[in-house]
Parts: sequence; C-alpha cells; structure tokens
Amino acid sequence: MRKVIVTAALTGNMVVPTQTEYLPYKPDHIAEEARRCWEAGAAIIHIHPRDPENGRPVPSIELFGELLTKIKAKCDAVVCPSTGGGPGMSVEHRVAVVRRYRPEIASFNTGSMNFGMFNIVKRYSEFKFSWERDYLESTRDFVFKNTFSDLQYMGSVFRETGTKPELEIYDVGHLYNVAFMVSEGWIELPIHIQFVLGVLGGIGASIENLLHLKSVATRLFQDRFTWSVTGIGYPAEFVMATHGMLVGGHVRVGLEDNIKLSPGILAKSNAELVEKVVKIARNLDFDIATPDEARDILGLKGMDKVGY
Amino acid sequence: MRKVIVTAALTGNMVVPTQTEYLPYKPDHIAEEARRCWEAGAAIIHIHPRDPENGRPVPSIELFGELLTKIKAKCDAVVCPSTGGGPGMSVEHRVAVVRRYRPEIASFNTGSMNFGMFNIVKRYSEFKFSWERDYLESTRDFVFKNTFSDLQYMGSVFRETGTKPELEIYDVGHLYNVAFMVSEGWIELPIHIQFVLGVLGGIGASIENLLHLKSVATRLFQDRFTWSVTGIGYPAEFVMATHGMLVGGHVRVGLEDNIKLSPGILAKSNAELVEKVVKIARNLDFDIATPDEARDILGLKGMDKVGY
Amino acid sequence: MRKVIVTAALTGNMVVPTQTEYLPYKPDHIAEEARRCWEAGAAIIHIHPRDPENGRPVPSIELFGELLTKIKAKCDAVVCPSTGGGPGMSVEHRVAVVRRYRPEIASFNTGSMNFGMFNIVKRYSEFKFSWERDYLESTRDFVFKNTFSDLQYMGSVFRETGTKPELEIYDVGHLYNVAFMVSEGWIELPIHIQFVLGVLGGIGASIENLLHLKSVATRLFQDRFTWSVTGIGYPAEFVMATHGMLVGGHVRVGLEDNIKLSPGILAKSNAELVEKVVKIARNLDFDIATPDEARDILGLKGMDKVGY
Amino acid sequence: MRKVIVTAALTGNMVVPTQTEYLPYKPDHIAEEARRCWEAGAAIIHIHPRDPENGRPVPSIELFGELLTKIKAKCDAVVCPSTGGGPGMSVEHRVAVVRRYRPEIASFNTGSMNFGMFNIVKRYSEFKFSWERDYLESTRDFVFKNTFSDLQYMGSVFRETGTKPELEIYDVGHLYNVAFMVSEGWIELPIHIQFVLGVLGGIGASIENLLHLKSVATRLFQDRFTWSVTGIGYPAEFVMATHGMLVGGHVRVGLEDNIKLSPGILAKSNAELVEKVVKIARNLDFDIATPDEARDILGLKGMDKVGY
Repeated sequence: MRKVIVTAALTGNMVVPTQTEYLPYKPDHIAEEARRCWEAGAAIIHIHPRDPENGRPVPSIELFGELLTKIKAKCDAVVCPSTGGGPGMSVEHRVAVVRRYRPEIASFNTGSMNFGMFNIVKRYSEFKFSWERDYLESTRDFVFKNTFSDLQYMGSVFRETGTKPELEIYDVGHLYNVAFMVSEGWIELPIHIQFVLGVLGGIGASIENLLHLKSVATRLFQDRFTWSVTGIGYPAEFVMATHGMLVGGHVRVGLEDNIKLSPGILAKSNAELVEKVVKIARNLDFDIATPDEARDILGLKGMDKVGY
Repeated sequence: MRKVIVTAALTGNMVVPTQTEYLPYKPDHIAEEARRCWEAGAAIIHIHPRDPENGRPVPSIELFGELLTKIKAKCDAVVCPSTGGGPGMSVEHRVAVVRRYRPEIASFNTGSMNFGMFNIVKRYSEFKFSWERDYLESTRDFVFKNTFSDLQYMGSVFRETGTKPELEIYDVGHLYNVAFMVSEGWIELPIHIQFVLGVLGGIGASIENLLHLKSVATRLFQDRFTWSVTGIGYPAEFVMATHGMLVGGHVRVGLEDNIKLSPGILAKSNAELVEKVVKIARNLDFDIATPDEARDILGLKGMDKVGY
Repeated sequence: MRKVIVTAALTGNMVVPTQTEYLPYKPDHIAEEARRCWEAGAAIIHIHPRDPENGRPVPSIELFGELLTKIKAKCDAVVCPSTGGGPGMSVEHRVAVVRRYRPEIASFNTGSMNFGMFNIVKRYSEFKFSWERDYLESTRDFVFKNTFSDLQYMGSVFRETGTKPELEIYDVGHLYNVAFMVSEGWIELPIHIQFVLGVLGGIGASIENLLHLKSVATRLFQDRFTWSVTGIGYPAEFVMATHGMLVGGHVRVGLEDNIKLSPGILAKSNAELVEKVVKIARNLDFDIATPDEARDILGLKGMDKVGY
Repeated sequence: MRKVIVTAALTGNMVVPTQTEYLPYKPDHIAEEARRCWEAGAAIIHIHPRDPENGRPVPSIELFGELLTKIKAKCDAVVCPSTGGGPGMSVEHRVAVVRRYRPEIASFNTGSMNFGMFNIVKRYSEFKFSWERDYLESTRDFVFKNTFSDLQYMGSVFRETGTKPELEIYDVGHLYNVAFMVSEGWIELPIHIQFVLGVLGGIGASIENLLHLKSVATRLFQDRFTWSVTGIGYPAEFVMATHGMLVGGHVRVGLEDNIKLSPGILAKSNAELVEKVVKIARNLDFDIATPDEARDILGLKGMDKVGY
C-alpha cells in the first residue's frame, strides 16, 4: 500500500493560548510534542517559534535554532521551519532561518492574500495574555504579503541552501504563481505542495475545492509534484486529510490548524491529532511513511547537509 | 432567449499606451468610445481615468466626474466606475468616486492579491511614455490590497449611496470573502459578481476554473447572484465570454482586459471588441440586454438617483 | 454528528462461491449473516436468494419469503430485496417479490447496460460448482435490461405497495432516467439513490465520478434525495464508502460488491466488512443510524405494513 | 489556429419525416445534402440509409452502397457509415457495411442502453407515414444492445478492414468499456471518440457533463485520443459544439441530432446547420479542417483503400 507522509504542524501563528491550554510554545514543550508526534507516526514536524513566556509568535532566528537543535536531539523526523514570518517582517528576515540553518525543507508561501483571524475574538470574553486580542484584531487590516519579488528572492535562497520548498497553496491562483516561478526558473520541478484549505481569505475546505486544486496542479505540473493537504478547524482537518490520502496525497494535522480531537473535545496534544489521523490511515490500509521514507518520496537532501 | 449584458471595460489600469495606440485615455476619446460601445450593444461601461497627456492611470475624482458627465451626455449606458485605485492609495480615496457621484454600480474588489503586469516589459524595447516601464515593473513588488477592514468600509459606502457593488472575483477565496461579508451584513444579497480570470496573481482563464467558481458561488449564494465573466488577453477574453454566456452568465470585453481582435490583429477600438462578442452572442441566438434591461436584471437604482 | 446508514449487501448475483468460501447462500446462513451485520451496525440488509445447494442465483419468490421471514425473526433491520432478477426473467417476475411481500424498500434498477462478470473467469482454473463458469461467461453477451416500459411498470408496483424504491444508479444517464420517471409521475420525490460504481459496463469507482453523480443529482432533484454509495471490489468499496460519508451520503458494503477485508485478505463474513466501515465512520466521528433511524431518514412505511 | 473538424450527421435513425419536411431520405437527396454540407465546411458526412419511399430507417447494405457511391461522385468528404443498425438486427448484419465497403471510418457503439424516442409522439396528432408512430413508440421497450461480445466482434471487423472506429459515447461508463476494449486488444490507441449528449437513456447535454467525459477520457487514454461532440436537440447541438471547439474538440451537427436552426425555426437543410456552426467557429477564430486535414488529424487510411 502507498506510504502516507504525516506532517505535524505544532503551533503555527494562528492559534492563541486562550483557545487551548495545550498549545505548546515553550521550546522544551514544542520539542517534546515533536518527539511524541514522531512516535505517533509523523515524519515531518512543522515549526514556528513563540515567545516562551506568553506564547506570542516571534519568528526569531535564535528560537528557531533552539527548536531545531532540541528536536534533532530527540528524533530523526524531518523538521520544516516556517518562513511565514509575522506582520511587518521583511522577506529577508523571514527567510533568514533557511539561510542560517539550511534545513531539509521549509515552508514557502506563494502569493499575497488576506489572512483573517479576527473572527475568533468574539468567541472569548477574556484572554489569557494581553497581546492576544490585539494580535487577532490586527488581522482585520492585514495582508499576508508575498509579492513576485518576494517569491523570486525566496527561490534564490532555497536554491542556494538546497532546501526543498514546501509550497503553501491557499487558493487556486497560487498554483499559477508557482507555474510562473517554474517557468522563470525561480524554483525547479519536481515540487512539493502543501494545500491549506479553510483560511479566512483563502479557498474553503471542501473536497470539490481540493480536487479542483489537484486537477489544476496536474494540468500545470503533470506528474512532477507531490502534495499534502490540511483543513483549518474541526472537522475540516480530518475531512481533508482523509479525502487527501484517498486521492493520492499526504496529510498534515496539528494544533496550528485545528485544536479539536472530536466534537467539543480539545486535543490534549498534537500527538493525539497525529494518532487519530494515523488510525484513519491504517483503517484504510495505508502505510505510514517513516522520516527516511518521507525524505525519499520528497527528494530531500538529508540531515547530513543541514546547518544545525 | 435569455438577455446577455455586455460590459465594455474601456481602459483599465493594466494596459499601457505602448501596447496599443488605440487605448483611449483622453476624456473625449473615452466618452466617444463609450458611445460607440453602447451603440454596438454594451449596456454597461466600465471606466478608469487616465492622465489626458500621457495615459498614466490617475484615479482622480475630477477626471471621474468629467468622464461620467461626458458619457451621460452621449448615451444611456450604465456607467460603472472603478474603485480599484492605484498603488499607495487609501481605500477612502479609492471609494471617493462612489461617495461623490453615487453611481448606479461600481467595482468592488474583494480580496488582496498579487497583480503582476511586469512580465509585459520584456516584450518591448522602447516605451511611448516615460512612466510606463517603471509602472509595469513596480507590479513585481506590488500587492493589490483589499483587507477585511477595507471591505467593511467599502461596504458601508456602497450601502449609503445605494450603489450596487460589482464584486470583482479573481480567485476562489474571494467568493468566500464575499460570503463572509454577506454573513457580517457588509453587503446584501442578491449580489452581482464579475469574474476576472487570467490575471498574473489570480486564477487562470479556463472553463474548468469558471465552472468551479460558478459552482462554489452557487453553493454559497444559491440563486441569489448574477454574474459576468472576462478573460485576460486574447483569445481568453472571447473564450471566457462565449463559455460564460452559454452557462448563464453575462460578459465583459474591452481594451482593459485584451487588446487583440483576432490572432495578431489589434482591436482599433473597444467597439470592435463589443461588436465581436455581440456577433458571437447573436450567432448563439442570445438577445443583447439594453441598458434598461441591464438595470432591471441587476436591480440598479436608476439614473435619476446618481449624483452626477 | 450526522447519522450514517450502513447497508449490508450480503450475496448479490455477481460473486460465485469459487471466489470466496465465505459467501452465504443457504437461507440460514444468509439470515445469520444478516443478524451479525445488524449487530455490527447495518441498518439495512440487501438480499438476493441463491440455490441452497450450489449457490446459484435463483430469484425465486419462495426463497425470498424464507429469507424475509428468517431475518425478521432475528433482528429489526430494514430488509431490501433485490428486483434485479436474472438473465431472461420478465420484469413482472423480477418485481413479484415486491408485489407479494410488500417490503419497506426494494432495489429498483433504472437503466439498461452491459454488466460484465466474465472477466473473473480467467483468474480461476477450477470452479467449485459446475454452473459458475458458464454463468460468468454468459455475461459477455448479456444486457441488464431495464427499458422505459420496465421502469414504468416497476414504478406502478412500488407505488401500489408503498415500497420505497432504492434507485440503483450505475452511470450518469441513469439519473436522467430517474428525472424522466419523476416528471412522468412514475415515482415520486423525495427519492433514495444507491450509487454503484465500478461495474464493468457502468461508471468507474473514483471520487471524481461520485462527486459528478452527486452534482448532477443535485441539479436534477435539488435537496429532495438521499443517497448511498458502494464501490465494486477492494479497495473501492471502502474508498467509496469513506468519501461518501464525508460528502453527505450513506454507505453500502458487503460480499455482493467486494470479498476482501484488506489487501490479499478475504473477509470471513459480511459482518467483518460492516465492522470495518463502522470503525472508519466512528473514527471520523459519525454516528451509525439504527434501523429505526434509517426508517425515519428514508421515510419508510414501517414493519407493520409489510406483507411477510 | 487549431483546425476544427465538422461532421454532418444527415439523417440518423431518430428523426421521423413528420418532425421536419427537410429530412433527406431519398438517396439523391442525401447525396446532394452531403455535397452542400461539404461545401459549407463539413469534412465528414455521417450517413444512415432510409427507405426512399417513406423515410423509414432501413440499414440495407445496398442502400449504403448507393449512398457511398453517390456521395463519392460529388465530393471528397470523408464518409462515415453508421453501424447502429435497427431493432432486432444482429451485430453481424449491422457491421456488414464495414466488411463490404471498407470505409475510412464508421460509427462503433460502445455500450448497451435505453434509447427513448417515444416521447416525441405526444407532440404530434398526425403522422406523415404510417410506420412513424409505432416506430417511435417501440423505443419505450427498446434496448440499444452492444454487449461485450458485440464489441469484440465489431473490433475484429474494424481491425480487418483498417476502418477507424468512431467510438460513440453516450455515457461515462462507455469510456470505461472502451478502456476495457483497449486493454483486451479489441481496438487500438490512438482512438477517436464521438460524444453524444442528450439522448433519453444517456447522459444529459451540459458543459459539466462534457468536461467530465473529457476528464475521464484523459485519465484513461492520456493524450492518445481525438474527440468530437454533439448535443441532441436545439439549442443543445450548438451549445455543445461551441463549448466543444473551445475545449479542444471537434464538432458534429445535422438533422440526425437536431432539426432547428434557431428558436422555433426548422433548418431547411443540413447545410444550414453546418453553415451556422462554421460561422460560430470562424467568429472564434478557428480554422475549419478540410477532408484531407481531417484524414490527417484522425489518421485515416485514405480513399484509395476503401471498397466502394
């Protein structure tokens, strides 16, 4: 049976501590979550640093280093740092983690868009940390900026470091951006795509949308791409993952995208989300790819070539 | 037979004079093009002001006024001003044309995205006007910004003036943004959608993409929307228009989106593009909507309620 | 969470005993399988009689009666007899089971098609029973006949007995046949559809095909239909069931459609197939409909109105 | 621009003289219609013989010979005889025209289905010829039979004569039948497909259905097929043809499929239908393939190798 790669997206930039007490943001906690997810079947760990004191997203190069080192000490999972950065950060700053640590793979956002998290505010009357409300509210007037200049620059850094881009696709147009990048030589085939469905500002999380994305990608790249999918929220995360594995894709789960394990029940750890998707996969008779199998499937350069 | 509304998009912000000597940018020329398009069957005229001396996009409120007055004097077409603005303009400035002139309908952009016109530069060794090259090149690092705050503000102005939003949809996620606006009460059903396919930064121009957009819109808005389509470039403009009318939509053509009449042949006027699409429509036994029929189909408030 | 109805299709007409020793064909065995499937979560039991001696499909009215009585004695599952009949049988003969026993629901085939089982022959050098090879081979020149006359006649019998048609859809055109039947008044909305994907002669088992069928059905019947899906063979049965429940459908499994539990492993009982699909459903947080919940969802007349 | 092949389907078996006085059925009239269609741009002429006295479909080998000879004398169009036969005819009889005259191309039906024309009866109170009513009514209980045995036999005859099969596809399952034929070696890639949408018994005439068929064919045959499309009735014939040419297909029109030129207006000749579709094609800047260009595109053996 086909090997399915499970990615665990541990923290992200979207969820605030008020939403779930289980969101890891201290480096040791994140590293321990990474280990548990790897044990549960995750081949790839997707990371974003947070302020260890209050959980605020802070894409600092030092925190990235700490996370990379600590996770490496605990397991042989592929680690995929985010280059999404934060509001107001320059693209150079965002991609510095790639230049500095030369990871096997890193996220590569492929277009500009709204990215609205403000809608969560009204669900809570109080917030655990003082930064949370303003942070969420600020996304009302926020553009996640990834201009063609940015894409070109990011491409040059990834090529230089041999880091595989995990191309984040939030809408159909992003696939056309990627095709343009390929035609300009900014990135090279074969590519690896991470579909993210259900962000407020991007395409919704439905199987029709997923199949349409897959079909457009097939027209643009023929069979020269691999792909993974995640859906934002519950049950979208598991719905997208299940459809995804059945139609030839890999899957991503994690507290970055969804905080619930089942209706009304918070996941107590990223590992629970990984365990659930692994159970679904095994019920459907899929094998779960080990980190080394994932390296092989995605054509990664290997841990002997990273800079951490 | 069903009535098809033809919109003529006369100038836009995308085409530079070097590309075609037939692009109208002097107010009298634009107004005369409007009249000719109306004569050829266009019920709606979509306008952007340009600097009368050198054709540079300048979304000035005075030029808008001059265009609106001059076109009104020549024909009874519905006039749809753009609120797309230009690089660096505030949303208040962009939407001032609606507040000031209270038109029947105006464009309403529904999401942030890249909007790349830089790729045109390499096709020309010389440019007619000095601003052109830099203008096009600047789109390499440009985000067309329409944050949720912007959308909310624009919605309030449109509601206040009774102007119908022509919702510009460049990608699938924009439909979800519109659904969000409806759910928040920023705009009201029934809505009118203008699909624009083929911008570098948005969804590509294919029938599969158009049908997917239509299908998503149907899931989100049931039958409470009307829609029109345009494709960027030749032959996409006519391909999208032809498919569009056959599957229940209205159509937009014009030099804003495409400068060619047939392979290798520049259109000598917007009216030629309208004539061509009208001929296609008549061959397929569609009727062409008059301006008043278009007002009725779209539920516009009428010329007695505009402020110009 | 939504209630998913599981149908167990116990024997069918397609599988021969040589393929699996676990195929039930003696009435007591079939009834016991029904009970075990019901225990495992099946709300509906779909039955075809077989010759108790050699497993040959024999749609005799007496054997139907024996099965109905024996299953009724063991559980409260809804029982859905087949009206598919066998080669050469008249439509009157095929539908006699409905007229005689007035079941709550029965299969209702909706179009003519090839139905090829001959391709199985080459996988076996010997057959357990002498009739098997010829039976399978005969499908090479077989048409499963359901003319419009047949459909009209069947409709009249179902209306007369208050039996709900389970409309078997093997291809897109069958949905148009059903729409025609509705428009002629042969059957009435709301309807219940059973999609069967992967028969040699019908549409293949892919999610794209399933979504297309669902989309055509939605255009034809709006929200006035319920539906279930099965895929022929392994893994299609579970792939279709999983996609199906995620996109709003109910599911059918059973040895009629598929004999394997996992790659290379024969299911030892229909109940194992039901258990597997129930496990998948529960992993995805669906509830499993009880027989009475299924009666409610499908609008069945109830066991007090059957004639057995 | 791409060359579009226009097929004119002159008479078929579906239309009766009562429906239109312009239906050609005398051999000289059919041959003259062929010539006029060829002049108007048709590269392929699709023929069915009719009784010269009363227009009744009679697939006689002699009438086929007369038609082939007469058309050959008038123009160099490719002639594609039907092998659809009539009710009760054996497959040997149906395909005799291929064996005897060894045409360049002939129709090849790919599955069994209902084929309902009875619904036309209620539109007319009187019929021109006495056979018409019963003929139409008889389709209520009619199966268009093309079993796998039939397909195998037909394949052997086509291979023997070097005649290219024009594979008639009335539903999605037929494409899977064709894939099966290819896998068994009954026919060879590349293949040529004729999609026929809108028969009562087959898939309906919508662009969604056409694109789904095209997409399934692409999955099954990659780029190793050419295709043409027709829709049954007005405006379906022109709607399907227009979409079809825009998405890479060839087109078929003619009185076999549709008798109207525009709403409420009967076409006075097949040539008018050809002229209309040619005008649509030219408006969309397509070139029209000559018969020799069609031979080249479809890989036909040429007129020097036919047996008439």
